[in-house]
Amino acid sequence: MFFHQKRLINEIPSSDPDPAAANALQEGLGGQFGEMRTMMQYLFQSFNFRGDALQFKDLIQAVAIEEISHVELIATTISQLLDGSPGYKPNGSATPGAGGATPLAMAMSTGNIHHYLVGAQGALPVDSAGNPWSGSYVYNSGNLPLDLLYNLMVEATGRLQKCRIYEMTDNPTARATISYLIVRDHAHQLTFARALEALGVDWGKLFPIPEFDASKYPEVKELMDKGLHLRQHHFRLDDSLLGELFVGPAADGSGDLDLQDEPPKGAPMPLSPERIEEFSPGLSDEMKKMMDELVGAPA
Amino acid sequence: MFFHQKRLINEIPSSDPDPAAANALQEGLGGQFGEMRTMMQYLFQSFNFRGDALQFKDLIQAVAIEEISHVELIATTISQLLDGSPGYKPNGSATPGAGGATPLAMAMSTGNIHHYLVGAQGALPVDSAGNPWSGSYVYNSGNLPLDLLYNLMVEATGRLQKCRIYEMTDNPTARATISYLIVRDHAHQLTFARALEALGVDWGKLFPIPEFDASKYPEVKELMDKGLHLRQHHFRLDDSLLGELFVGPAADGSGDLDLQDEPPKGAPMPLSPERIEEFSPGLSDEMKKMMDELVGAPA
Amino acid sequence: MFFHQKRLINEIPSSDPDPAAANALQEGLGGQFGEMRTMMQYLFQSFNFRGDALQFKDLIQAVAIEEISHVELIATTISQLLDGSPGYKPNGSATPGAGGATPLAMAMSTGNIHHYLVGAQGALPVDSAGNPWSGSYVYNSGNLPLDLLYNLMVEATGRLQKCRIYEMTDNPTARATISYLIVRDHAHQLTFARALEALGVDWGKLFPIPEFDASKYPEVKELMDKGLHLRQHHFRLDDSLLGELFVGPAADGSGDLDLQDEPPKGAPMPLSPERIEEFSPGLSDEMKKMMDELVGAPA
Amino acid sequence: MFFHQKRLINEIPSSDPDPAAANALQEGLGGQFGEMRTMMQYLFQSFNFRGDALQFKDLIQAVAIEEISHVELIATTISQLLDGSPGYKPNGSATPGAGGATPLAMAMSTGNIHHYLVGAQGALPVDSAGNPWSGSYVYNSGNLPLDLLYNLMVEATGRLQKCRIYEMTDNPTARATISYLIVRDHAHQLTFARALEALGVDWGKLFPIPEFDASKYPEVKELMDKGLHLRQHHFRLDDSLLGELFVGPAADGSGDLDLQDEPPKGAPMPLSPERIEEFSPGLSDEMKKMMDELVGAPA
Amino acid sequence: MFFHQKRLINEIPSSDPDPAAANALQEGLGGQFGEMRTMMQYLFQSFNFRGDALQFKDLIQAVAIEEISHVELIATTISQLLDGSPGYKPNGSATPGAGGATPLAMAMSTGNIHHYLVGAQGALPVDSAGNPWSGSYVYNSGNLPLDLLYNLMVEATGRLQKCRIYEMTDNPTARATISYLIVRDHAHQLTFARALEALGVDWGKLFPIPEFDASKYPEVKELMDKGLHLRQHHFRLDDSLLGELFVGPAADGSGDLDLQDEPPKGAPMPLSPERIEEFSPGLSDEMKKMMDELVGAPA
Amino acid sequence: MFFHQKRLINEIPSSDPDPAAANALQEGLGGQFGEMRTMMQYLFQSFNFRGDALQFKDLIQAVAIEEISHVELIATTISQLLDGSPGYKPNGSATPGAGGATPLAMAMSTGNIHHYLVGAQGALPVDSAGNPWSGSYVYNSGNLPLDLLYNLMVEATGRLQKCRIYEMTDNPTARATISYLIVRDHAHQLTFARALEALGVDWGKLFPIPEFDASKYPEVKELMDKGLHLRQHHFRLDDSLLGELFVGPAADGSGDLDLQDEPPKGAPMPLSPERIEEFSPGLSDEMKKMMDELVGAPA
Repeated sequence: MFFHQKRLINEIPSSDPDPAAANALQEGLGGQFGEMRTMMQYLFQSFNFRGDALQFKDLIQAVAIEEISHVELIATTISQLLDGSPGYKPNGSATPGAGGATPLAMAMSTGNIHHYLVGAQGALPVDSAGNPWSGSYVYNSGNLPLDLLYNLMVEATGRLQKCRIYEMTDNPTARATISYLIVRDHAHQLTFARALEALGVDWGKLFPIPEFDASKYPEVKELMDKGLHLRQHHFRLDDSLLGELFVGPAADGSGDLDLQDEPPKGAPMPLSPERIEEFSPGLSDEMKKMMDELVGAPA
Repeated sequence: MFFHQKRLINEIPSSDPDPAAANALQEGLGGQFGEMRTMMQYLFQSFNFRGDALQFKDLIQAVAIEEISHVELIATTISQLLDGSPGYKPNGSATPGAGGATPLAMAMSTGNIHHYLVGAQGALPVDSAGNPWSGSYVYNSGNLPLDLLYNLMVEATGRLQKCRIYEMTDNPTARATISYLIVRDHAHQLTFARALEALGVDWGKLFPIPEFDASKYPEVKELMDKGLHLRQHHFRLDDSLLGELFVGPAADGSGDLDLQDEPPKGAPMPLSPERIEEFSPGLSDEMKKMMDELVGAPA
Repeated sequence: MFFHQKRLINEIPSSDPDPAAANALQEGLGGQFGEMRTMMQYLFQSFNFRGDALQFKDLIQAVAIEEISHVELIATTISQLLDGSPGYKPNGSATPGAGGATPLAMAMSTGNIHHYLVGAQGALPVDSAGNPWSGSYVYNSGNLPLDLLYNLMVEATGRLQKCRIYEMTDNPTARATISYLIVRDHAHQLTFARALEALGVDWGKLFPIPEFDASKYPEVKELMDKGLHLRQHHFRLDDSLLGELFVGPAADGSGDLDLQDEPPKGAPMPLSPERIEEFSPGLSDEMKKMMDELVGAPA
Repeated sequence: MFFHQKRLINEIPSSDPDPAAANALQEGLGGQFGEMRTMMQYLFQSFNFRGDALQFKDLIQAVAIEEISHVELIATTISQLLDGSPGYKPNGSATPGAGGATPLAMAMSTGNIHHYLVGAQGALPVDSAGNPWSGSYVYNSGNLPLDLLYNLMVEATGRLQKCRIYEMTDNPTARATISYLIVRDHAHQLTFARALEALGVDWGKLFPIPEFDASKYPEVKELMDKGLHLRQHHFRLDDSLLGELFVGPAADGSGDLDLQDEPPKGAPMPLSPERIEEFSPGLSDEMKKMMDELVGAPA
Repeated sequence: MFFHQKRLINEIPSSDPDPAAANALQEGLGGQFGEMRTMMQYLFQSFNFRGDALQFKDLIQAVAIEEISHVELIATTISQLLDGSPGYKPNGSATPGAGGATPLAMAMSTGNIHHYLVGAQGALPVDSAGNPWSGSYVYNSGNLPLDLLYNLMVEATGRLQKCRIYEMTDNPTARATISYLIVRDHAHQLTFARALEALGVDWGKLFPIPEFDASKYPEVKELMDKGLHLRQHHFRLDDSLLGELFVGPAADGSGDLDLQDEPPKGAPMPLSPERIEEFSPGLSDEMKKMMDELVGAPA
Repeated sequence: MFFHQKRLINEIPSSDPDPAAANALQEGLGGQFGEMRTMMQYLFQSFNFRGDALQFKDLIQAVAIEEISHVELIATTISQLLDGSPGYKPNGSATPGAGGATPLAMAMSTGNIHHYLVGAQGALPVDSAGNPWSGSYVYNSGNLPLDLLYNLMVEATGRLQKCRIYEMTDNPTARATISYLIVRDHAHQLTFARALEALGVDWGKLFPIPEFDASKYPEVKELMDKGLHLRQHHFRLDDSLLGELFVGPAADGSGDLDLQDEPPKGAPMPLSPERIEEFSPGLSDEMKKMMDELVGAPA
């Protein structure tokens, strides 16, 4: 059973709208190696888990649960980056295209026109080239060493792609989330690497992938200085066997793995204003009045 | 931020393996109107929510969080139904196809050969005809009345399809989960119907869809007798505004809506044995020994 | 602008339900070389037509319009073949799965379970292997000789596949429609072959494809004896230039092309009964009463 | 059986080429909520219709037939918007890339390069992000109230998306068709809303969706002043029972529903010139001479 | 530049037709982890290779070239297994459905009806559940350690799936090819494992995946006894640097890697007879006569 | 069995990076009518070939083998066009995004962001609109005249699309490969046209498609002056029956078909430098040292 708390797993600083950055981040949400895929892959692996090596099930599921929060984080980030990008200022009549105006004209030269035409300046379950997410991405062979090897590779690809996105934009909203995910994908590489070490592999100097001095990325450095790349939570309301595996020196030699029972404190959830040029939320004054009568004014 | 508890949202009774039923249930998991879709659709709608009518956001998200537990429930059910269906009994040598034997021969005449060839007698993110789940299923227009109307329709289609699955199989494992989801889809119809009532709609006698005497299904009757079709939890670790909307008489005239802060008590998670004819989990004796040395014998 | 008449382009004799035949016919409806594709391909070619050789536009569009009626014919045939295949006889209580019964059990061992789970014993826009129809099937290069060559090939493939379906089933309902379409695909081969003859090609003995003595198929023979493979209507309420091209000896040497202004007389549209095991149409007694009050008893 | 008339259902004014607008309109043609989808969805619903409430069948089919003409209208509009956009002026030699020139260079920075590379400045069966249309869009549950509810939602989404497209471009060719479809989607909302009213629903102030003062769009106002949002034709050459349902006050309170037996008068079909930089139609002088000998000069 | 020799890379013994086995083998041809994918993945990786560590390029390309021959081998095997499965014996008239007969009736209850309806008892580029092969399967990140890790995982999954197919059928034609590919996937695991050893990884006891005593499969044992799991050819007409990496003890401890300059001797290519019930090849007597006049009687 | 030689089938001159041209060329690689499709289509047709008209098998396979080299040629061309397009110059620290720099910023406004985010400035198996290649493109009906007719049409479409690409860019690297493929598609048209002539067709003046004076394209003229459009190799290490069919005057009247046993001499394979902003190849100094110790310095 799953539960939710109204806190983001990491803070999203605000900045100017940036639809190009938003579109690049879609790869990290709905791409073949994005958060929707890791979330679904690890959930399926834990639901279908076989055998009594339940430490591995708990290890996989700990990451799985975290990935749901990553989906929330990156979707919210994309939504924040898109919000307000048309720069529409409603006039008195408050009718978006009144008199034949074109407040959404910019949508035709943006990364993905669907952000404005299908969604309402919000995240979509697609990649940065517009391909919808597919269930065929999910890998769950049922063979544990193989599933772990695949997961390791997925996390390495995730970090690689996010490092590339980092190099595409310096928007601080985008960078905050991307840097956080770079560090968490690093941690997840170490998690799955550790699981395979328990089965006898010695990784030598292979990790992290990609190999480079990530501390040159200022936002990443800040998080690594806090040891975030070595830490793992289990995100459970009950017990977890994760700690039986997630111990000892990390596979990249950067320190000791750090299991924490307490989840991160989290950050407040940003609110998104109405965007009437999108007819969103599209409540008429009359509807709002009815609703107010029913429930009182919103908090 | 999301959290997990090692309890299933409803109990899964055990029974004989039944791959045909498992395949029919795939529609409820990975089909266009299955639980993966409702989960993702409502999550995206809540992540991209606009405006200050936050009762609606909390209403949508309450159902969203529950749907993740439904994905867990139905995936686990499918896994249980598939488990052991080849009827393979390892001989002394414990090598599945030893001497050229064919322990997986039944896979060639089953609903979806991928259950044995790609997965290891476990659930897949596909529908009952084998199509992978697609991100294009997710609907999130950003227009609140429209999103609510669509959600209502999705829940009605979900209940319709699950009633049809009920009529396809009398396997008790399959029926337990299908009946539970019939009743919960009923509840979710009432939830979204209620949200639209708050915006002024009077549904007359339209609900529930499909219209029929569901109490003739014994497993469904048992759950409805407990009022499960009128109840909604918020599945939050903090507060929810759901209660401001989810009050008063249900749209189908069957009673009063029943908001509960406490989630269901849940049921124990079944364990799945190794299936060596699938090389799952595929740990060698040597690997197990290494692991035991590391962590002690598993619980 | 398009119009409709409540007549089928060819008669569908009734017979026993036959879901396997229905599924084979799906290839002719929603397959890569089925009627949805020819319809859409020729419609797009006529909408995007360039240049003043308007005889070719009218030739392509004449076939396009006919294909819409073929979609209607084959969809209705599939619907008729599926109708009643579960053999469900409602008992007094008229609740399909009452007491836990499984009236749709046969759906789990049929060609496409979606015929019962997603649709209500009706045709689907998919092929015989369950793949949904795709817009990528439509070919419209804008180069007229090339479009004609492609159309010719599509019609030849259509006839080939339908001859193969003919050999799969002797169900008279299926055969009536398949045989009609074999003959019409033959006629369309001659139509496009003729258009390319007008551009200078001499086909020798290539047609029809596949080459064989089709008069050995009794149902096909009957239609060919009437000259249906040589005939073309324009299906227009106004004028057509088709006749300027569709004249002279047919490319297969079987006779003279026969342009007819009058469309076929057509056949009555079969009615489909309620199927309550599918909750179709799902009107409650109360709804029916309301409707009767509104409009009087149905005709 | 279907028929055609060489008239467009609404007039398309000519304007300068506008490939960006053309691409936005692709959503209305080949998008998940575009005209190809409504056309196919309603056709399948009418082909598979069950039960004796044939007024509903005729209501659904009336809209279905109209949608084929909408596909023709919007495809032709896109074709007109693309036509001539490369601005190629053939020189004496009339060979497009003669001497190594690049008359199609603009295709590399346009909305969808396929408009020039795969098609010949013509409409494609894809959405505005380039995804091909899919048969999985078609919804036909066989449960009548549910199908009507879904259709209502599709029409509301169609109007929403077209209002957004209206705000993206002020090209008069694009706007004429988009405004017409906004008004017709409005009418279709009222049509399906009315059908559900006959089953007992009272919609309150929900319609039209999206809620706003559409008369601020000048082109839309002109059509609504004529009452086009309240009108429905049956597009049949024989009788229709549509009138038994389509009567009385409209669900949005804007007036009385207006059934008309006579279809719109329609508008002339524009002709598209040769585009030799696309090798379209690609008839050589020799081919034209052969054809002229055969049929005489074209009309 | 690529070249071909009319020899199969391994022998295919003949046996009775076996369409179920043919369908299972489709996973190994057109599945997500089948030979078409490894072929394309390694070809793209070698075409896009960066940097001067050309030993790795040659290593990847050596396997890539071999995979083209594997595609040929498994496609030919599927074709052989399907050939003649309808059991059609042409009568005197040699017209397949003469008199209304149904020689292809078995196609409706086979694994994939497309084998008879779309193809002519031949292999298709689809997986065992009928999904067409997709370019999205190809992984080529450009990061060499990551690409090698992914390739290793693909080969392990390939061997896993082929072991499962082995357990599904004892058809000797199917088994010959499956066993050969089990051994070659084993060899390719060792190849990519070796490449990563050169970068510093020590695999411990991880290989081969899946871990089990494969010598219990008689057909596999025979090939392993010849050392085929340790051997690699470069399949080049010129030089290769593969030997600089492919040396020393294998990662699974089973012996020394064995580089061979000479490719396998190969086996004769089976011929497939005409199948007139499929209209294949569909040459009329007249066409054959024309052809004979042109080229003389076929060899 | 297949073999490879380290020579490109045609030379690729170097030029400045040109990502827009690279993206247009993707249509020729991974598009519905690109080289991957012809390669796969003809390979499947030859693997599944039926009957004893083996000249046709050898004719189809000769083109098939050549197409693998075309895939290599166009993939390498795309890779060359993309290489270096970000213009990144590593600074002393050699960390791509050091200090928060954005060396890949240009990726967000390029044809396909995946060229930089998913690949490392290399070719992808997708078309110019970003759609992944699909197995559903492959046509292999098993009916020989039909397969030949389809192949002819594919080659004509290939030439049409490549002529359009020629008109989009004057980049000399792009043009060299496009012009070569225009001429080879021309030759393949003549090859399949010839095969159908052997079955009795007289093509008149239909070829080549598209019809125009291609000698006005300077790069094409140069190749046609050498007779490359009339030539065919068999690319076999053993014998071929191609010559029995590929003789006599070409179907376009431009000369005599010219069979050559010797393949083209080929051109050297360009090398691609490391791109550290892509972490490609991503070998650390330590890894390089290990490798050097193992194999000595690279050649």
